[in-house]
Amino acid sequence: MSPKLSDLMSLDNAVFRAYLFYSAVLILKMLLMAPLTARWRYAKKIFISPEDTKLAKGGKSGIQDPDIERVRRAHLNDLENIPIFFVAAFGYLMTNPAPFIAIMLMRLFTLARIAHTIVYAVIVIPQPARAIAWFLGYFITIYMGVISLLTFLV
Amino acid sequence: MSPKLSDLMSLDNAVFRAYLFYSAVLILKMLLMAPLTARWRYAKKIFISPEDTKLAKGGKSGIQDPDIERVRRAHLNDLENIPIFFVAAFGYLMTNPAPFIAIMLMRLFTLARIAHTIVYAVIVIPQPARAIAWFLGYFITIYMGVISLLTFLV
Amino acid sequence: MSPKLSDLMSLDNAVFRAYLFYSAVLILKMLLMAPLTARWRYAKKIFISPEDTKLAKGGKSGIQDPDIERVRRAHLNDLENIPIFFVAAFGYLMTNPAPFIAIMLMRLFTLARIAHTIVYAVIVIPQPARAIAWFLGYFITIYMGVISLLTFLV
Repeated sequence: MSPKLSDLMSLDNAVFRAYLFYSAVLILKMLLMAPLTARWRYAKKIFISPEDTKLAKGGKSGIQDPDIERVRRAHLNDLENIPIFFVAAFGYLMTNPAPFIAIMLMRLFTLARIAHTIVYAVIVIPQPARAIAWFLGYFITIYMGVISLLTFLV
Repeated sequence: MSPKLSDLMSLDNAVFRAYLFYSAVLILKMLLMAPLTARWRYAKKIFISPEDTKLAKGGKSGIQDPDIERVRRAHLNDLENIPIFFVAAFGYLMTNPAPFIAIMLMRLFTLARIAHTIVYAVIVIPQPARAIAWFLGYFITIYMGVISLLTFLV
Repeated sequence: MSPKLSDLMSLDNAVFRAYLFYSAVLILKMLLMAPLTARWRYAKKIFISPEDTKLAKGGKSGIQDPDIERVRRAHLNDLENIPIFFVAAFGYLMTNPAPFIAIMLMRLFTLARIAHTIVYAVIVIPQPARAIAWFLGYFITIYMGVISLLTFLV
């Protein structure tokens, strides 16, 4: 007997609501990466495409700048980790997990990714600060993936 | 009282059908980026990996070419914006938005991203053409994210 | 008459269970790209950010190494193809496809992407090995996208 999907994916289910809430937080956090990059681009007048150079007087393009590249690496790391988390967490939700654990894991993942961005691209903190934040998010996603895989193994 | 999820995620619900339709359009648009890049790679015989150089006579690898990099930047910009839109729009759908507004926002986002690709990588049009297309998609995603966040705030 | 969503998105529906299963496999495969990159970074002592250089004695940063860049290209190719597959396959599922075909396509996509990673970044096999693996996944996603688009066309 499978649990009823209509109970799992219900707006009365605290776990599903938490999923939608933390997804929204992570989406807004990821969207912040663009202005974070733009801030450096305008400050340094270094743009990504030749047609952008008029956006600031004396703007240049095609130059690799360490501060800009740092934010871009943080953004790429988000792309590598956050979209698949949305799918991993959705599958995990379908396994009917204990609400307390499920909500805790989503909250931890969200905090870990916010911390990752801060220590990587806002206030650079020496390693292993970034490694710890990254690993926490990484292992939560692996855990959710493994639970889903075992539950839905044909 | 939450709205019934079975009404929101129903194939009889025009908003949910529109979500599936515009998602499909955006997926196909993103998939087009690969042949767009490949076209330049073959034309210029510049490939990404050493083992690809035999795909065209006299092919080379490891060279940065402005036309190829332009398409790749447009593709990366898609990766930064479109997958999270799918999740943002799904969460927004769960807030039971007015159908007219919801469908309009999804349509605008889709048109903005198609325009973004065209002015960035097909027919390069001076700024702020690309900036406007990008901002439109960006603000729609932020709006959806904020509405979800406020609705599902615990 | 639309098919009932509660029948399509049901844990008693083999297609939906397969979707969750293959999604989990693909998520875990993608997560493997990070240790694959890290293995090369530690072996070659070439890191991505200056603060990482202390992770191995004599570590350097900012250098482009062909083995590391190869794994990173494979990872980027995953980012370009796998997250949109999750959305394409979800939309395709909503079209009420024949279970045998739907499950087969998801299995083929998963195998194609695993093969793509292996021939690209683990044991480099001459082209067209990688091209074949990539095309297979690409055409499956296009097929799903087109079926969704036609089904949900307003």
